[in-house]
Amino acid sequence: MMNKEDTKNQMIQAVETVRKTNPMAGSITNTVTVNFVANAQLAVGGSAAMVYLPDEGEFLAKVGGATYINVGTLLPIYEQTLPHVAKVLHDTGKPWVLDPVAVGIGSLRTNLLRKFKEYKPIVIRGNASEIIALAGLWGMEGGTDISNVRGVDSTDSVRTAKAAAVALARWTGGAVAVSGKTDLITDGSVMAYSHGGSHFMEKITGAGCSLGGVVTVYATAASPFIAALTATAVYNLAGTRAENKADGPGSFQIQFLDELYKATASDIANNPFEMEEVNL
Amino acid sequence: MMNKEDTKNQMIQAVETVRKTNPMAGSITNTVTVNFVANAQLAVGGSAAMVYLPDEGEFLAKVGGATYINVGTLLPIYEQTLPHVAKVLHDTGKPWVLDPVAVGIGSLRTNLLRKFKEYKPIVIRGNASEIIALAGLWGMEGGTDISNVRGVDSTDSVRTAKAAAVALARWTGGAVAVSGKTDLITDGSVMAYSHGGSHFMEKITGAGCSLGGVVTVYATAASPFIAALTATAVYNLAGTRAENKADGPGSFQIQFLDELYKATASDIANNPFEMEEVNL
Amino acid sequence: MMNKEDTKNQMIQAVETVRKTNPMAGSITNTVTVNFVANAQLAVGGSAAMVYLPDEGEFLAKVGGATYINVGTLLPIYEQTLPHVAKVLHDTGKPWVLDPVAVGIGSLRTNLLRKFKEYKPIVIRGNASEIIALAGLWGMEGGTDISNVRGVDSTDSVRTAKAAAVALARWTGGAVAVSGKTDLITDGSVMAYSHGGSHFMEKITGAGCSLGGVVTVYATAASPFIAALTATAVYNLAGTRAENKADGPGSFQIQFLDELYKATASDIANNPFEMEEVNL
Repeated sequence: MMNKEDTKNQMIQAVETVRKTNPMAGSITNTVTVNFVANAQLAVGGSAAMVYLPDEGEFLAKVGGATYINVGTLLPIYEQTLPHVAKVLHDTGKPWVLDPVAVGIGSLRTNLLRKFKEYKPIVIRGNASEIIALAGLWGMEGGTDISNVRGVDSTDSVRTAKAAAVALARWTGGAVAVSGKTDLITDGSVMAYSHGGSHFMEKITGAGCSLGGVVTVYATAASPFIAALTATAVYNLAGTRAENKADGPGSFQIQFLDELYKATASDIANNPFEMEEVNL
Repeated sequence: MMNKEDTKNQMIQAVETVRKTNPMAGSITNTVTVNFVANAQLAVGGSAAMVYLPDEGEFLAKVGGATYINVGTLLPIYEQTLPHVAKVLHDTGKPWVLDPVAVGIGSLRTNLLRKFKEYKPIVIRGNASEIIALAGLWGMEGGTDISNVRGVDSTDSVRTAKAAAVALARWTGGAVAVSGKTDLITDGSVMAYSHGGSHFMEKITGAGCSLGGVVTVYATAASPFIAALTATAVYNLAGTRAENKADGPGSFQIQFLDELYKATASDIANNPFEMEEVNL
Repeated sequence: MMNKEDTKNQMIQAVETVRKTNPMAGSITNTVTVNFVANAQLAVGGSAAMVYLPDEGEFLAKVGGATYINVGTLLPIYEQTLPHVAKVLHDTGKPWVLDPVAVGIGSLRTNLLRKFKEYKPIVIRGNASEIIALAGLWGMEGGTDISNVRGVDSTDSVRTAKAAAVALARWTGGAVAVSGKTDLITDGSVMAYSHGGSHFMEKITGAGCSLGGVVTVYATAASPFIAALTATAVYNLAGTRAENKADGPGSFQIQFLDELYKATASDIANNPFEMEEVNL
């Protein structure tokens, strides 16, 4: 199993490489939180660009170091754009990150997410309910059917998504990050638990979406597991620090962006986490 | 007529029920202020989800406690989505809130807003010009034709919208909230005037849109009149408090979200308002 | 050549006229930064409205004092909306401002930007790479082909865009603003260099987009050159002031909006700039 010190060193390297190289991470993401996604990506040192059209998505997929696909607010054109871009990413071996927001709502969302199975996103990030439902949609262990989703919020706890996360990670050969009180990150053989964050993260829209965007930035410079763990760590760290200064969810969001920007590589790597081997 | 103390008690109950139950209030709303709408809904204790496609809107209409339709920035798909979702809401007896932003601009907007007459939103929220123009479009007393709109800003004062607001509320059997210096809320038989707010609310985009979103959250837990009055009260309270701490419109918006979050049920119910019987 | 004192007096007049008349400046702009564009326009004293549909764009073009077209995140409907609205603006002699964001990405963007040559935006605002690429697309001096764009960030310095900016300004009969460390504004015969700003402006999304929106607000009340110079000056001033108070990019953006709102006409006119005659 990967050593914890090695892991920390790789996290430090991911953070520093991103700050040094300002890598381009294109996104096709929802309209609700698109601004926050971009600002979070910039705050950690990445460069952001968002598009909707098929050929524009293909362009970003090819020039970017990694690409983010978040299915939050589907528009009709996504029916053409998303499978096309996901295929380009897969065929060119480019890393991409999937946030299966609100899996289970509507037929287009279900069809798109089903198709993504073959295009293998290297990181999948979601809350427990989304990870369990996606595993169900992909016919995997730990999954359940998608008929009990309520919306964008999780009704399951992170630990219940463990088997689903491992199954998804083993299928893609990448990593899965499950967001919750304690966050779980796995590559199918190692399981990390990352601590911190803030209760305010459920009181602002886009904490999850923008985490997916930041995972994508780190995925330009690190393995899927390290990218997911590093992004989760900086989110937990910045969340804890921002809560200490915030007077409510409005000021929390502002402080949070500031703390994303100010967090040092060493602070991020030393944000509390544990690792264990997967016994499934 | 409803007693003022009873009214306050119902407002307190609405605020507390929302904070306890975190009700889902789906929205189909504009891209300019969608993030602020969601953050305001979360700040008062609701849960937010935004979509564009017909079957996704139908899903949210059915699982949500209430639904918000704001016609701010129409996209082509809205031609299918909005009448479909409004019909589902009407046929299933689910409460929904309409913000007829910029009524009078463009043919699709006019057609959609005309159709909504039969689907009876239980709260209509707008500025005076929008309420007067919608009443005109629906062929009601107090309305004028829609040809003199300038954009999204009101050119009429709240009091001039009184007859239109009463006529609309009587038609829908719900309530109408007219935003302005003093806000007017009516269910067709009672008229309430709510005070407070801030001059900065016209210096940020989305004060009105997000108020509609918050009305929708309270509409999951209270009558249309109480939902509209409670949302208006917390907006006026948070506006006044935020202005005291703000140094400009940027910091005002942040403080405003914090104050929405911090306002107690009792503070909200005790924000100044008067009630009178409608004599029209 | 225009005298520097005359220039300052015209800047002061532009700022004061806008604050006094609250002019309507409609926009068709991207979904990433649309909220920031609107809030910046409101902060300087304008009124904002955003649309996507052809007849709604035509409406805003006709009732607004000036219109902003930013091609950041194209949607399919833009293929109909943008040429139609640009033609209406041109045919009615109404001023409009173009931000050719990410020129070079995708075929629709290229086709739209090529068409805009005949509709002559009175101000074009972009980073150096975008200005050079647009001049190339329009077959003008100083331009290069569009195949070397990376995304939304500039890979060229402002000074390298000088010839392109002059050529574009001479063609439109308006002005061109090139954003960078030192900003360049030209009407084809005079060249102004505006100083200030902040390194944080590259760490938030929408500094450029919202500058285009604010240019549009001033274009309702001043010549293209004065509008571009005034907007650039208030951005540089507010950027410098906001950086002094900010703790990171989150708080910078909030302070920036506050400073846009608080800047006096005289402060704006006295923000450092130089002027010289164009010798090309």
